Amino acid sequence: MKTPIKVTITGAAGHIGYALAFRVASGEMFGPKQPVILRLLEIPQALSSVHGVGMELEDCALPLLYDTVLTDDPAIGFREADYAILIGAKPRSKGMERKDLITENAKIFSAQGRAINDHASGDVRVLVVGNPANTNALIAASNAPDLNPRQFTAMTRLDHNRALGQLANKTNNLVADIKRMTIWGNHSMTQFPDASNCLVNGTPAYDLVSRDWAIDHFIPRIQRRGAEIIEARGLSSAASAADAVVDHVRNWALGTPEGDWVSMSVPTDGSYGIEEGIVFSFPVTCKAGNYEIVQGLEIDDFSRSRLRASEKELREERAIIEDLLH
Amino acid sequence: MKTPIKVTITGAAGHIGYALAFRVASGEMFGPKQPVILRLLEIPQALSSVHGVGMELEDCALPLLYDTVLTDDPAIGFREADYAILIGAKPRSKGMERKDLITENAKIFSAQGRAINDHASGDVRVLVVGNPANTNALIAASNAPDLNPRQFTAMTRLDHNRALGQLANKTNNLVADIKRMTIWGNHSMTQFPDASNCLVNGTPAYDLVSRDWAIDHFIPRIQRRGAEIIEARGLSSAASAADAVVDHVRNWALGTPEGDWVSMSVPTDGSYGIEEGIVFSFPVTCKAGNYEIVQGLEIDDFSRSRLRASEKELREERAIIEDLLH
Repeated sequence: MKTPIKVTITGAAGHIGYALAFRVASGEMFGPKQPVILRLLEIPQALSSVHGVGMELEDCALPLLYDTVLTDDPAIGFREADYAILIGAKPRSKGMERKDLITENAKIFSAQGRAINDHASGDVRVLVVGNPANTNALIAASNAPDLNPRQFTAMTRLDHNRALGQLANKTNNLVADIKRMTIWGNHSMTQFPDASNCLVNGTPAYDLVSRDWAIDHFIPRIQRRGAEIIEARGLSSAASAADAVVDHVRNWALGTPEGDWVSMSVPTDGSYGIEEGIVFSFPVTCKAGNYEIVQGLEIDDFSRSRLRASEKELREERAIIEDLLH
Repeated sequence: MKTPIKVTITGAAGHIGYALAFRVASGEMFGPKQPVILRLLEIPQALSSVHGVGMELEDCALPLLYDTVLTDDPAIGFREADYAILIGAKPRSKGMERKDLITENAKIFSAQGRAINDHASGDVRVLVVGNPANTNALIAASNAPDLNPRQFTAMTRLDHNRALGQLANKTNNLVADIKRMTIWGNHSMTQFPDASNCLVNGTPAYDLVSRDWAIDHFIPRIQRRGAEIIEARGLSSAASAADAVVDHVRNWALGTPEGDWVSMSVPTDGSYGIEEGIVFSFPVTCKAGNYEIVQGLEIDDFSRSRLRASEKELREERAIIEDLLH
């Protein structure tokens, strides 16, 4: 029998967490032969609700789900975690300034970083989904002195998948036929969805669609897709966000396909001129639990200005919570 | 390339439909190599919401999802459907009598039966989830004169899985170690969850748990589990119901494991003394798209009285909508 993988999900009673837990437990994240143990961590006010999630998980009779732990104690929630998916975050309330949103979440994610440092597996891999995801990941990593910052990532996979969907739609192809999509920067309005390296059935995307289409339609639509979903559904993206979590972690754990890459927000290392000290989305390849930033892509002036804009935003976010960094 | 399987889901913007659509589209129902086309059928008032579901499906960049059709027209929604999952139903509103609930839904499901008859594949397989599921399935089948009534089933798989979960919990085993659970009768409070044939790691369940436990705890808990979930979550079961849909259809399409069976509500044929004319849950084995009721199980006096009670309820439901049957 394979050793079960322990997956901690915070905010598991929320819409994304609820959509995610069942997909992890049914084997979509690590494959049909890999048992999992779920540790669902919630705030005290959501304990009854997450208890209901636990009951529904039990009601699924899922053969791969070896155990489910429900708790509001981070020491229990992160204990021996192999993967920590940090979804729970303080949402922006009416009249709240962006600076306050960043500061409030910084407190949550610095505490979670410490708890992960103290209780999780030394090899834990962390994915931050709760916004502002990139800066929350930076804070968590900075508060986990015994871990490598590379173990902390933030999610731009939903943006990546959205971009694949839009390009597939525009070119009337299947998403499976498109490779080498890239999301650069922050998971925010400054993100840069970049189709310039994409291959559609082996043909460069810009042989099939114009750069004007990319600039005028594709890029802004991906940047604003979250709002478009809210308008249609009356609720923010949940199932698609959960799907992106599954994709992000599965690729990280099991690897990316040969000849393709995915987008992950990871600590900067100087690649593409983005200096250290922030968590920034890059094209990455993954193999057996490791990721490497794809090197050597051409960055033209237009792209450079987009990367700089997102970098600038992330450095501003960093400045707001500088006192919580170590 | 495999021909995509066309799956129609009604009520796709509701909680169960929302939890289900993404799991079907990601390959959980028919396996990782089988493309699917989703046809999401909603009532006109929910079109904006189901449009949002369609956008989120696009945002997942799922390689197996070849197309998504969003409509409020049953002629389009059921067109060439290989599988029709009927979730949308009129819920019980405050002060509504059970008789009125049955009558209101009978109108919906007789119309859907006709639409399926006229537009779906001749081999369509139908699963009714919307309550009262068994009688709704009976009505739909009766209004589809060109189809075999055996193509219409109702869902007791959630009850079946809940029963597996409870027995696994009680005996401290994994659900994968338990075989031959049975739900008999109606998907309602009169259902009879029957562990008397269960094997737990090969050992008869009643060598491990007492019949008194089954009667006093197990049976009533499964019957009332839906209410227990609502109390904890503040919402009815959604992800676990969607999971049961995946299980029901996957087993029907791809078969049940050797030596085990599942519970499905199917048209009665005289098996176990339940006369024709209702849709009743039995233990069934499935193989390549067909199901057979497991024959020859011993039914003691206690079990017989439970089967009769559920049969009586289903005949009463039938009497209420008799004028809609053909």
